[in-house]
Amino acid sequence: MSIYAASAPVFAHLLTTLSRLLDKAEEFAAAKKIDVDVLLNARLAPDMFPLSGQIKIAAAFAKNGACRLANETPPDFNLDDYKTLADLRALITRTLDIVQSLPASAFEGAGPRDVTFNMGPEIKMTLKGGDYLNRQVLPNIYFHVTAAYLILRHNGVELGKKDFMVDFLKEFMS
Amino acid sequence: MSIYAASAPVFAHLLTTLSRLLDKAEEFAAAKKIDVDVLLNARLAPDMFPLSGQIKIAAAFAKNGACRLANETPPDFNLDDYKTLADLRALITRTLDIVQSLPASAFEGAGPRDVTFNMGPEIKMTLKGGDYLNRQVLPNIYFHVTAAYLILRHNGVELGKKDFMVDFLKEFMS
Repeated sequence: MSIYAASAPVFAHLLTTLSRLLDKAEEFAAAKKIDVDVLLNARLAPDMFPLSGQIKIAAAFAKNGACRLANETPPDFNLDDYKTLADLRALITRTLDIVQSLPASAFEGAGPRDVTFNMGPEIKMTLKGGDYLNRQVLPNIYFHVTAAYLILRHNGVELGKKDFMVDFLKEFMS
Repeated sequence: MSIYAASAPVFAHLLTTLSRLLDKAEEFAAAKKIDVDVLLNARLAPDMFPLSGQIKIAAAFAKNGACRLANETPPDFNLDDYKTLADLRALITRTLDIVQSLPASAFEGAGPRDVTFNMGPEIKMTLKGGDYLNRQVLPNIYFHVTAAYLILRHNGVELGKKDFMVDFLKEFMS
């Protein structure tokens, strides 16, 4: 299996899903006449990141994961700069541009190549590219995109599982 | 990258994570003197599956995904039979046994091999094994395991991101 097929296009689908979630959040806020920031700041537990944080972390894993597997140094985004709905949309677009700009050929040989990344502020970890994707990037990106979806779902935004899955399968649907 | 490394061991980690979630749910229920069924029946939205359903669906994707990629017909589990905490633990063990019994060699050539599966009661879909894994099994299994985690987190069970990630990385930790 190509490590490209298991990474960049999957990240692109998840970023597109995040865009759809923001559209749904905006529609819901307009219909209910509430500030969309209420949803961007909503959390499932007091010590968890709110919707905005879930989106920022998912985007960071997509950017860092795709660049590192393509053997490029990920550009630094200052995530604190992204606060509003418009900021988050710009972050998703910027991340999607990076993920989609990396050619499949850059991912060749990424499976056995060492990838070093920060596990915490002072902890570095080195894994083979395949393990980095399967054990670090995919679990994290799926966790945070699902959390974003569930924060909205829990707040009453009309979403279905289809809104999570459609981008993955649409090219196979007639 | 090997399709085996991207599937069976990942599913096994996620099943182990589900076991840990059930342990935490049981401890929390005992400490609060509540019936653990309250947690098994908890939902993030009225029209979503409760914790028990999230676990059953995640286990089904692990079983079906692993068997189909290994070119075997998945055994039929009647998910309606699994109701209690003990039932769900038995389901996880049974699923883990299947996933771990499939040899890596059975996954060779799975990437380009056609896999046919049910998208709904009357809808069949055929994808190449690689697409089936990346576009169907992984998104679904991560969605339902994350939902299980977040249902407990939202109900006050003490869980951290580490409880979601530890099984993936423990073999690399010293």
